[in-house]
Amino acid sequence: MKILVINAGSSSLKYQLIDMDTEQMIAKGNCERIGQEGSFIGHKTADGRSFTKEIPMPDHAKAFLAVSDALLSEEYGVIKNLDEVAAIGHRIVQGGALFSDPELVTEEVIKGIESLIPLAPLHNAGHVQAIRGCQQVFGDKIPMVVVFDTAFHSTMPEKAYMYAVPYEYYEKYAVRRYGAHGTSHRFVSGAMADLMGKDIKDLKLITCHIGNGSSITAVQNGKVIDTSMGLTPLDGILMGTRSGCLDPSVVTFIAEKEGFTPQEMNTLLNKKSGLLGISGISSDDRDVTKAEEEGNHRAALVHQMLYYQIAKYIGQYWVAMGGCDGIVFTAGLGENQPALRESVVDYLAFAGVKLNKEVNAKTRDTAFISAEDSSIPVAVIATNEELAIARDTKSIVEKL
Amino acid sequence: MKILVINAGSSSLKYQLIDMDTEQMIAKGNCERIGQEGSFIGHKTADGRSFTKEIPMPDHAKAFLAVSDALLSEEYGVIKNLDEVAAIGHRIVQGGALFSDPELVTEEVIKGIESLIPLAPLHNAGHVQAIRGCQQVFGDKIPMVVVFDTAFHSTMPEKAYMYAVPYEYYEKYAVRRYGAHGTSHRFVSGAMADLMGKDIKDLKLITCHIGNGSSITAVQNGKVIDTSMGLTPLDGILMGTRSGCLDPSVVTFIAEKEGFTPQEMNTLLNKKSGLLGISGISSDDRDVTKAEEEGNHRAALVHQMLYYQIAKYIGQYWVAMGGCDGIVFTAGLGENQPALRESVVDYLAFAGVKLNKEVNAKTRDTAFISAEDSSIPVAVIATNEELAIARDTKSIVEKL
Repeated sequence: MKILVINAGSSSLKYQLIDMDTEQMIAKGNCERIGQEGSFIGHKTADGRSFTKEIPMPDHAKAFLAVSDALLSEEYGVIKNLDEVAAIGHRIVQGGALFSDPELVTEEVIKGIESLIPLAPLHNAGHVQAIRGCQQVFGDKIPMVVVFDTAFHSTMPEKAYMYAVPYEYYEKYAVRRYGAHGTSHRFVSGAMADLMGKDIKDLKLITCHIGNGSSITAVQNGKVIDTSMGLTPLDGILMGTRSGCLDPSVVTFIAEKEGFTPQEMNTLLNKKSGLLGISGISSDDRDVTKAEEEGNHRAALVHQMLYYQIAKYIGQYWVAMGGCDGIVFTAGLGENQPALRESVVDYLAFAGVKLNKEVNAKTRDTAFISAEDSSIPVAVIATNEELAIARDTKSIVEKL
Repeated sequence: MKILVINAGSSSLKYQLIDMDTEQMIAKGNCERIGQEGSFIGHKTADGRSFTKEIPMPDHAKAFLAVSDALLSEEYGVIKNLDEVAAIGHRIVQGGALFSDPELVTEEVIKGIESLIPLAPLHNAGHVQAIRGCQQVFGDKIPMVVVFDTAFHSTMPEKAYMYAVPYEYYEKYAVRRYGAHGTSHRFVSGAMADLMGKDIKDLKLITCHIGNGSSITAVQNGKVIDTSMGLTPLDGILMGTRSGCLDPSVVTFIAEKEGFTPQEMNTLLNKKSGLLGISGISSDDRDVTKAEEEGNHRAALVHQMLYYQIAKYIGQYWVAMGGCDGIVFTAGLGENQPALRESVVDYLAFAGVKLNKEVNAKTRDTAFISAEDSSIPVAVIATNEELAIARDTKSIVEKL
């Protein structure tokens, strides 16, 4: 069974065709600048063929046409007929309080995703456009499933998801913590249980998804009890260009001093803060690391802040779960930045958590990195959100 | 030696005369509605005499005149001559990065406090008015000392006090974490070391000042390494009417939906959130407790949120210090709400922290409340900011 996984925004679309018998990627690619000048598709196959091509894509339907052309292409294709695609799985950022499980796409489900646009204006609006465009190109014979980034977090208790602002904003606008990266946290917590040879139902795990966007999650007995991202993906620790959580007065203080509107503050806190804002150099950790090595104080500072904030979240969730059986690092920095892992775990030395520093230094893929005498295991798990979405899609369409 | 301690705001003024030989209060009182209609003074003495009286107080000088009249009064007074007041100590909310120690009041120091008004508009402006008014009434023969609420927090490392917003706002407006309640955290951490019979230089303590305003502080070897209040006293855990820290998007989201200005958002987050905002009942925990006992869901919810947030801060700071040797509860709720202490410490059971529940239930003043086999001691410490200010004042004026 082959499943096509789609991760679409308002002007871009990533795709991956997965063979579910082997769980291996067959082909993947991305369409960029949809609805803009200079739109293009980049495509590559598992066996190493690839191309990039400018194609006018005034809307998502045209982008899906380009995707289907690429998949069917004589030179770069991987299938002979669209019927080979058994199902399509879409990643959806915001499922709000409406969706706590993957759903087969129906008109009602699309309306539900549409109703959540106020909570994720850019993302959910793009998702709806993409689903409609996908239906136009792939027709209604191929079943579609939507998998929500927030769904894994839907088990959080009220005490963890409520913000202490007037209750009317929860009632009126559904202001609460939703979390993000749920599909990744679910994938890596499951994989960690497998790696430990234990049932996830018996484990208290802390999963650190540290990338350009970052979130940390407490997974107790397979269920999320707390997570660092909130109403939006701005909450929690500092990120590439995002501030993470703040004294709310910082928002009103800067807005007032600078005469910024809420939208301008949003831009400042989402696009100009974090690694970029403190270092003044880049949102890319590789650039910040290089600057730190060259003696740049603000680059060193933002790393110290980041490691300290991650360690403090681990402390929070350790207490929230009443213990911790394992810690996972995943995503861009979590998988590829051994210095980050070492600095974070150093904070936990007092609790007997210890890395094998040599193993940690060279690990870039799924493996334990803790020392043999560490009180609990620490691992890198390579996240694979596309595979998680494909598995969910498969399990729904198999029942049809 | 008798020292007069002043805690003044823009329209109110609390005073306490302390006998430094016994460290006992001789008389105390408050002036309210300074500069408004219906201003009055309330005064009481340690031996039980008291009065309340409406007196016009168009400015702070007139309020201090009322205070000196009360202290000298034949019927309600406690001194014969103002010369008996050896020194006056003023509490100052915001010392910014300028003041890390108590200071003798000079024109330069007043200018320094004035320069920090942008960081604490209501408080510091009131302090300056009060110091000027006090000088007019008490003259320049009685030395005055200012003690800063932020001073104890001035040892925080950069990684703890920086917010991950663009660095220019730190340079331009000094946006950073300052903390608050420093005088209380200093007093209770010192008293905890005494109670434990240890040198504070050897201890890692977490002090929970939980009142109408609340802050939690990590005190390592007698120095603050982190604290929950931030740029302003809005950061950290939820409070009587304050939200505590938030996903910054919650601020911009509500501001945009409701069309609120930064000032209106400030009012909402400082005056209408927290216990009041979630319960919809009251900012007074006694009312919320009563409602919870009567089965009110939102009253129960806000208590769960509060206890959970305190426990999570303890977890953060435990990791930040690499361990914890003792936990202190102080201030209104910290001293008088055994149910809060029990719920918070329950989260720490996995680490062997345990209360003596009977002792806890009846403790309202300085005492250990932990069980004999608790892994670390937990205590209630009755805070006394006035005494701490008087001690600082004494130690400065003794050197003159």
